[in-house]
Amino acid sequence: MPKKVDHEARRQEISAALWRIAVTRGLDGASLRDVAAEAGISLGRLQHYFRTKDEMLLFALRRINQLAADRVRERIEALAGEPTPREVLRACLSGMLPLDEKSRTGLLVGAAYYVRAVHDPALRAEAQQGIPELRDFFVSQLQRAVERGELDPGRATAEEAMLLIGTVDGLATYVLLDVHEPETALRLLDRCLDNLFGKG
Amino acid sequence: MPKKVDHEARRQEISAALWRIAVTRGLDGASLRDVAAEAGISLGRLQHYFRTKDEMLLFALRRINQLAADRVRERIEALAGEPTPREVLRACLSGMLPLDEKSRTGLLVGAAYYVRAVHDPALRAEAQQGIPELRDFFVSQLQRAVERGELDPGRATAEEAMLLIGTVDGLATYVLLDVHEPETALRLLDRCLDNLFGKG
Repeated sequence: MPKKVDHEARRQEISAALWRIAVTRGLDGASLRDVAAEAGISLGRLQHYFRTKDEMLLFALRRINQLAADRVRERIEALAGEPTPREVLRACLSGMLPLDEKSRTGLLVGAAYYVRAVHDPALRAEAQQGIPELRDFFVSQLQRAVERGELDPGRATAEEAMLLIGTVDGLATYVLLDVHEPETALRLLDRCLDNLFGKG
Repeated sequence: MPKKVDHEARRQEISAALWRIAVTRGLDGASLRDVAAEAGISLGRLQHYFRTKDEMLLFALRRINQLAADRVRERIEALAGEPTPREVLRACLSGMLPLDEKSRTGLLVGAAYYVRAVHDPALRAEAQQGIPELRDFFVSQLQRAVERGELDPGRATAEEAMLLIGTVDGLATYVLLDVHEPETALRLLDRCLDNLFGKG
């Protein structure tokens, strides 16, 4: 294997070890040493790939966000025929809820990252990065809905897009806390879309 | 001071030290020893009041939730005349956003707690506890709005109440991550209430 590919593959293996810890016992207080042990390598070897916990978290988060984005893309492509804007939005938003083990893992890593990002401007910058793109995509779907006569033209699409993102984020939190069953969160998401698009 | 009062006062002092750490550098990886140092006492003395980090977090969270509930009650009582259901809901929901230092501190402690609670059923039980009461209060306000002709009677009030709670939780997260300015989150909250009640 070429050296660069090997380096990337090792980093992904270490990421996977980090995810396993995130899922089973959480990352709060988990050290580089803990992750090295889970990955079955020495601390020195791990530090060859990641110098700090934040660097490792950042890599793991980017990778898991990439996988999540791929899943959402697949969900949209799997929609039959020419999906309506509402169907596209539902596919994206439900992909942001912890409805299966993969999305749950992503959200657990995200939670560990979040609790550090609120105190670290560099980590925060990363967390902020994906949002405008997602918002713009949602806005484009909402504008398409207005053009198709499926959404009240009086809606402020940028604000509605941010509200949708915030709402799903809050619902995801409550699923992780067992306040909601996953199905309840999905039902609430549909209610939210009902409110936006009108029931009929 | 009677011994019991003294014990409670000491626990509150230690809580305050925990909050200071939560605000300045976060609780991820913060140990009992760190909190003892911040409180200016020995680790042994701290352990006389809290045996574990979770016990300490739980106490600090209950106390901060109590203070938050008191603030919301004051906000409602400060509303002039006979507040409408929408005004009452807005007072509660905006009190759940990090719009000042006190609510920000509460949310930072809550975030540290959250990231542990997703892995610990006992901590989760505590997080779940306040939700039904809050939901029921919101439902009572929404039903009052229906009776006053201010809300479409077709709205499922229990689901709308949970959506409001989830939405504000998501918006609060985005303020802590600097995705939204506090004023933006407040504007989005008003948009959300516009959508629910109709613009007027």
